[in-house]
Amino acid sequence: MSLFIKGGTIVTHEETFKADILCKDNKIIEIGDISVVPKDAQVIDATGKLIMPGGIDPHTHMQLPFMGTVAKDDFASGTIAALAGGTTSIIDFVIPNPQQSLLEAYHQWRDWAKKAHANYSFHVAITWWQDSVAEEMETLVKDHGVNSFKHFMAYKNAIMATDDILVASFTKCLELGAIPTVHAENGELVYHLQNKLVAEGFTGPEAHPLSRPSSVEGEAANRAISIANTLGAPIYLVHVSTEEAVDAIRYAKDHGQTVFGEVLAGHLTVDESVYQNPDWATAAAHVMSPPFRPKHHQDALWKGVQGGTLQTTATDHCAFCAEQKAMGKDNFAQIPNGTAGVEERMMVLWEKGVNQGKITANEFVALTSTNTAKIFNLYPNKGCVRVGADADLVIWNPAESKTLSAKTHHSNIEHSIFEGMTINGIPETTICNGKLAWHDNKLFAQSGDGKYIDRPTYAPF
Amino acid sequence: MSLFIKGGTIVTHEETFKADILCKDNKIIEIGDISVVPKDAQVIDATGKLIMPGGIDPHTHMQLPFMGTVAKDDFASGTIAALAGGTTSIIDFVIPNPQQSLLEAYHQWRDWAKKAHANYSFHVAITWWQDSVAEEMETLVKDHGVNSFKHFMAYKNAIMATDDILVASFTKCLELGAIPTVHAENGELVYHLQNKLVAEGFTGPEAHPLSRPSSVEGEAANRAISIANTLGAPIYLVHVSTEEAVDAIRYAKDHGQTVFGEVLAGHLTVDESVYQNPDWATAAAHVMSPPFRPKHHQDALWKGVQGGTLQTTATDHCAFCAEQKAMGKDNFAQIPNGTAGVEERMMVLWEKGVNQGKITANEFVALTSTNTAKIFNLYPNKGCVRVGADADLVIWNPAESKTLSAKTHHSNIEHSIFEGMTINGIPETTICNGKLAWHDNKLFAQSGDGKYIDRPTYAPF
Amino acid sequence: MSLFIKGGTIVTHEETFKADILCKDNKIIEIGDISVVPKDAQVIDATGKLIMPGGIDPHTHMQLPFMGTVAKDDFASGTIAALAGGTTSIIDFVIPNPQQSLLEAYHQWRDWAKKAHANYSFHVAITWWQDSVAEEMETLVKDHGVNSFKHFMAYKNAIMATDDILVASFTKCLELGAIPTVHAENGELVYHLQNKLVAEGFTGPEAHPLSRPSSVEGEAANRAISIANTLGAPIYLVHVSTEEAVDAIRYAKDHGQTVFGEVLAGHLTVDESVYQNPDWATAAAHVMSPPFRPKHHQDALWKGVQGGTLQTTATDHCAFCAEQKAMGKDNFAQIPNGTAGVEERMMVLWEKGVNQGKITANEFVALTSTNTAKIFNLYPNKGCVRVGADADLVIWNPAESKTLSAKTHHSNIEHSIFEGMTINGIPETTICNGKLAWHDNKLFAQSGDGKYIDRPTYAPF
Amino acid sequence: MSLFIKGGTIVTHEETFKADILCKDNKIIEIGDISVVPKDAQVIDATGKLIMPGGIDPHTHMQLPFMGTVAKDDFASGTIAALAGGTTSIIDFVIPNPQQSLLEAYHQWRDWAKKAHANYSFHVAITWWQDSVAEEMETLVKDHGVNSFKHFMAYKNAIMATDDILVASFTKCLELGAIPTVHAENGELVYHLQNKLVAEGFTGPEAHPLSRPSSVEGEAANRAISIANTLGAPIYLVHVSTEEAVDAIRYAKDHGQTVFGEVLAGHLTVDESVYQNPDWATAAAHVMSPPFRPKHHQDALWKGVQGGTLQTTATDHCAFCAEQKAMGKDNFAQIPNGTAGVEERMMVLWEKGVNQGKITANEFVALTSTNTAKIFNLYPNKGCVRVGADADLVIWNPAESKTLSAKTHHSNIEHSIFEGMTINGIPETTICNGKLAWHDNKLFAQSGDGKYIDRPTYAPF
Ligand SMILES: [Zn+2]
Ligand SMILES: [Zn+2]
Ligand SMILES: [Zn+2]
Ligand SMILES: [Zn+2]
Ligand SMILES: [Zn+2]
Ligand SMILES: [Zn+2]
Ligand SMILES: [Zn+2]
Ligand SMILES: [Zn+2]
Repeated sequence: MSLFIKGGTIVTHEETFKADILCKDNKIIEIGDISVVPKDAQVIDATGKLIMPGGIDPHTHMQLPFMGTVAKDDFASGTIAALAGGTTSIIDFVIPNPQQSLLEAYHQWRDWAKKAHANYSFHVAITWWQDSVAEEMETLVKDHGVNSFKHFMAYKNAIMATDDILVASFTKCLELGAIPTVHAENGELVYHLQNKLVAEGFTGPEAHPLSRPSSVEGEAANRAISIANTLGAPIYLVHVSTEEAVDAIRYAKDHGQTVFGEVLAGHLTVDESVYQNPDWATAAAHVMSPPFRPKHHQDALWKGVQGGTLQTTATDHCAFCAEQKAMGKDNFAQIPNGTAGVEERMMVLWEKGVNQGKITANEFVALTSTNTAKIFNLYPNKGCVRVGADADLVIWNPAESKTLSAKTHHSNIEHSIFEGMTINGIPETTICNGKLAWHDNKLFAQSGDGKYIDRPTYAPF
Repeated sequence: MSLFIKGGTIVTHEETFKADILCKDNKIIEIGDISVVPKDAQVIDATGKLIMPGGIDPHTHMQLPFMGTVAKDDFASGTIAALAGGTTSIIDFVIPNPQQSLLEAYHQWRDWAKKAHANYSFHVAITWWQDSVAEEMETLVKDHGVNSFKHFMAYKNAIMATDDILVASFTKCLELGAIPTVHAENGELVYHLQNKLVAEGFTGPEAHPLSRPSSVEGEAANRAISIANTLGAPIYLVHVSTEEAVDAIRYAKDHGQTVFGEVLAGHLTVDESVYQNPDWATAAAHVMSPPFRPKHHQDALWKGVQGGTLQTTATDHCAFCAEQKAMGKDNFAQIPNGTAGVEERMMVLWEKGVNQGKITANEFVALTSTNTAKIFNLYPNKGCVRVGADADLVIWNPAESKTLSAKTHHSNIEHSIFEGMTINGIPETTICNGKLAWHDNKLFAQSGDGKYIDRPTYAPF
Repeated sequence: MSLFIKGGTIVTHEETFKADILCKDNKIIEIGDISVVPKDAQVIDATGKLIMPGGIDPHTHMQLPFMGTVAKDDFASGTIAALAGGTTSIIDFVIPNPQQSLLEAYHQWRDWAKKAHANYSFHVAITWWQDSVAEEMETLVKDHGVNSFKHFMAYKNAIMATDDILVASFTKCLELGAIPTVHAENGELVYHLQNKLVAEGFTGPEAHPLSRPSSVEGEAANRAISIANTLGAPIYLVHVSTEEAVDAIRYAKDHGQTVFGEVLAGHLTVDESVYQNPDWATAAAHVMSPPFRPKHHQDALWKGVQGGTLQTTATDHCAFCAEQKAMGKDNFAQIPNGTAGVEERMMVLWEKGVNQGKITANEFVALTSTNTAKIFNLYPNKGCVRVGADADLVIWNPAESKTLSAKTHHSNIEHSIFEGMTINGIPETTICNGKLAWHDNKLFAQSGDGKYIDRPTYAPF
Repeated sequence: MSLFIKGGTIVTHEETFKADILCKDNKIIEIGDISVVPKDAQVIDATGKLIMPGGIDPHTHMQLPFMGTVAKDDFASGTIAALAGGTTSIIDFVIPNPQQSLLEAYHQWRDWAKKAHANYSFHVAITWWQDSVAEEMETLVKDHGVNSFKHFMAYKNAIMATDDILVASFTKCLELGAIPTVHAENGELVYHLQNKLVAEGFTGPEAHPLSRPSSVEGEAANRAISIANTLGAPIYLVHVSTEEAVDAIRYAKDHGQTVFGEVLAGHLTVDESVYQNPDWATAAAHVMSPPFRPKHHQDALWKGVQGGTLQTTATDHCAFCAEQKAMGKDNFAQIPNGTAGVEERMMVLWEKGVNQGKITANEFVALTSTNTAKIFNLYPNKGCVRVGADADLVIWNPAESKTLSAKTHHSNIEHSIFEGMTINGIPETTICNGKLAWHDNKLFAQSGDGKYIDRPTYAPF
């Protein structure tokens, strides 16, 4: 099965040049001025278009059981949305309950993911600790292609990892050549502030950001970084949303430490004022953690992106519908946390980043695909356009526009945090595993076409 | 009872000028060119000398029960040493055991302190939490002149305050108009590193600094500051010893937060190489926490002093003799932590600060007395030279020199971390509560002459 | 001649306490609970009011010949405005033409100032260089009480001091114990941008800020600081208006350098949008250099004030009326640069600083009076409330309000950059040289009552 | 003409993998497990060795006429030294005299370079300004492959570019798509300090660093960056040697500006103490500008390298022999400035960077070759190992060691600043333009084999 993309301009994280591409099976087998093409090759004319590595979203939660319900987008609908937005791979999270076997949870998630249309892999969360957890981490690394473990520093009385767990788990990660990642918010402070606010009668979504001020994230970011530094481990911070956390990462990098930061398309472009929306459902639809922030944080995040402090972009896609959100009608702390975005991420970054002159097209590729591939050791199979790499590609049409809306998106929920944003330059065609997966608003990939991605340890950072 | 100091040069935190001083009872009653003096007044000729506010050491531990033994300097010998060095007041620490009543401990310490030769006050440590602790904090503030509470972020399984305690206690301090203070080291990391080092066979004092690297302090400093920031409370960091902690304080101050930092004379001048001393006893004599640091931290501390990031100087005077130190012969983690210094602090700061051009004489006064008086709300009774202020003074003779040594110091232990340092300019005469307390190497103050200092809440910072 | 102020609360840069004040001639002679008062003493009831040191504005330009015209407020009207706002002293600028004798210019300005109602002193500008300039600097210092010299790094082809002049003059200042001050903007860049903008057809006031972007100030601030650092000289930056300059000062202070920063009431509260005003006259009325800035700079300035990076507040009062501003009708670069403010400074800082919780009342005193007195060596004659100090005082009524307006201000121009701002807490009574100078909106001080202030060298910083 | 390298491990700036390489003419034509090789191919066995892109030194001065003499290494000896150290390309400097035609100078340098053994290109210095200079810049860019222009901010009364020239030239660079580069030292301060030191009798090499303290570089670095920022131009700082300059670059990058920094192998590893050498000739042999620095600057430079603030490594190779250095026997300011290093750069960076764990082998490639290629728009012809790239390669033998010494180096001078440094892992074989150029300490490249490198404008940063 061959696919021939002719006449396009290839954009990688470091170069821009015109060339044809020939794919066979799931691989790129030739790049250049290609004259000989298999007769049966499917031909795509990319004249005037940009061919880039398929997006990799390193942070999604498909069909996550969370806060008493289950996220609306499962691995089928979620990966359809991904493909519609040019993203060919996601890294989702296995989140065992405290006391649950990591392997048991892992297999549960693998099973759920069988219906995926795009590729997927899993971070595994460390939500408790005893010797058996360390042993299962080792098994996951050695036998199941896991090279990253997630730690929630918030969510007290649930999945919060206290410092003793962080120390133990980071130490194990280092030993295994895996990378620890953290959701950085001080869980004690969040707990204190939630209780205080509710006690004072602040029960609506407008209290949500007050319960998680930026200092709460700054503290935890710095703590995770310092613990990693002390132990000699690398560290990756998911969904960095504050100036304080950007500053903490920068400080560490400037002192020679290996630290990575991820930023969400939402935090780059949506601000705190959404929680003031008089419509409860709209305000609640924006409830996620960390919350959207006052505008000066957006400036800090973009500066972090431009200066290399933040390397990856993600979405924390975790879709809850209005009915689910309503569970927190009487108490903002019970509104299921999460928003969608896996479809819009690359478009938002293109519009607000490339079109506004904040980043170059090469940096766009690095931020949406290559850097994630490098950090989680998928590179150069993924994250690049070169002979031998996986044929996961997005063909961008810079001449087309569209307006983002919940009416047209492919998530199962009825709200979009990007509602009404016009995008100039869109992902027209998505190729996944060497096959046309999405083209001209039509889905071609089948459920089950997505492949599990093994990630080896000891990434070369 | 009158005391007349004639012909000297008064140095305060903001001025330098020639004037006579007349004290009556325990107060300064006149400053200027004084012609009429009570007949019975004791006269001190201060010609050619500098008259400064008596030193205040905000961090001592006299006769502290700690790590299975009791510090050798009690409130008698400790305050004699203080007076010998120009220090007229100390702020010591009441450290209740977990589960012990704060008031019970407070009264115990008050009782011990009755034999003091110089003035004293107490920070009270919060080592555990339940509602009764909050109530006792209130009693201490309202009835006993306590306006500061201490929190140890290290010493796991002993007196460590975890984040939930910090949040609760800082909140209570804010409510009471008191200031929380912290010993900033991440206790989980220290615990992990101590166990790891001992397990690997590193049991000597040279392993002590390895168990408490600078990142461990930087983390906790930032955490305490961020928690205070989130709650809106002020915060005071004791014994700041690292570049990381200085940077954390500076960052907070630059963002408008109210943060204070204390630095020890020892950390400013002694470096980590002492732990390499082949003589076990000498190396062990330097074991304190935080440990002495690589030299570049000293540079950061001095910069912090010069730029206003660090406001006070202290000693953490906690004297353990060789025999006590030997309790950790087989395991560095069992060496009682502490060194002496209450006598040498001002001399060391004069020699290494003023004489080396790092600070002015006015800044010396601010750093050794005035700033502490302001932060802990003793100003302008203490920390200044003006009419109406307490007659606690030190008369400095810039023309005299001496060499610091355990042979001549007044601490009960046989080691000095400043051994051999020559000081140009010495505290010749110390006046405490309007009476000659120390002069020309002779003690005049009696046991019991020291007074307890009430400290009102809501200091004007 | 005695003046008795009874029942008020004294607020200094470091204390707040109730006390009566007795002044005789131009001095404070008693503070406390005063029972014996000279019969003929004028009595002021300050019950419920705050008594603070009279304001010192370290940056004004009364009747300055500039850009082809002369500023509208002379030393009479300008000091009336000062007194009306609680300011009892100004430090103005002698600005010799290039090639003009410094002494000649100095005497010219002294002559102009004879009509002042409030006290005054002079910085002298170094606008050119040859040996005679150095000699005249020495004469000014030794015989005329000048201890500060000003350098304009902008205004190419006029009074700009190039690096060779800065090096020579700073060196001379250091030798004399005087302090160099700078207007920090890169004159070459301003010149380039002005020409470029006009060539491109941007001739209106909206182009003014484009010709002086924040990087232009940041560059010059850093340059002046670095030159001073290299030579070992102290340095004072006038009208710091940008985040970049605040950062440059902070960096230097954090590295142990002696650097001071001044901020204008206008830059703290007025932003760049004023240049978009469709009314030419209104936009032009705001033309001053450095220009008003985008809002995030205001945040940085306040942070600088709070963290101690900026120590003094001023106005750069240089009043040009609408007719004068119209000289630049065809070219923004010819609009006379300057705005009024000497009357409003303290009120603006009270309202936007103290009332908004950004600074305490003690810090207000430090920022409006004490720090300037210390830096320019007027302390403790000025800048404090104590026995022996000059009786320059302002009595603040925290219970009264007023709305700032050109209709009611005392400047000779028809525009106020603070138009419409409501002030809660106002300077009700101003005492200058021990005499009632202003009370309840009435002027009592006579022309000529203002005294020239000698400033000795070697301030104790 | 084919070259076959078999069995090696390819190391690029982002990957490490085993593969054979086939070169034909001057290009790499195949990479992988190569089974079919042209019969006549020269075969190199790289088993156990690392194959990396040939080094590019972006800063050399071969046979430079300077300070009254001419540098000893010409384009022949200099490029032999380069090849001996694994460097296959240099970017040298055309430095016109003020008033001299840029084209005339350019052709002079092109003529001198004809004898080169390795590849070369030229930055052109802007040492004066009038319209014709701008026109010649355009010609150089359009017709001669120049895309970078150099500005000396030091060397007053010689080639110093004052701010007006910087503004004019940076503006022209921006218009042309070229990049301005600067030697950042404040020339006025250097001039002042040199004169002052000599006047005070400090005439020896120990005075050289005193005449160029770190603040002098920090100032100029910040100025160049700010001017570029104001104009919207990119900027490249050559030979960054101080903490202050690193901080200035970092500040700019953190604020979204495009700034690049180069560091010399010498500044990373040699410190200021060399100027205290009692042997005049040895001390003088180290005289270069900027000078070697106190040790804490080295730490800052390494941190800059690790954190991405500094992207390229160079040498400023400008070799003067003892006899030439002696010209400054009576005045350090007349000692010809310069040291050798083009041969040692990569080895020093390998030993002190890779072997000491400061950087990875991939980062080594980026720092010695790839980043320079990208910034100066040679990538991917140079700076990478891939099909289609120029066959400029170095084969590193990690198992071999050597000790650096003037006795064995290939520069024409009798001194090495790296004398005695042992290198573990050496450049054993150098391939330039597809031909064996150096192998096992033998030179194979001919004089004239080096090719001029055209550099197109608008590099994709
Ligand atoms: Zn999260
Ligand atoms: Zn998540
Ligand atoms: Zn402690
Ligand atoms: Zn202690
Ligand atoms: Zn100005
Ligand atoms: Zn001015
Ligand atoms: Zn140079
Ligand atoms: Zn050079």
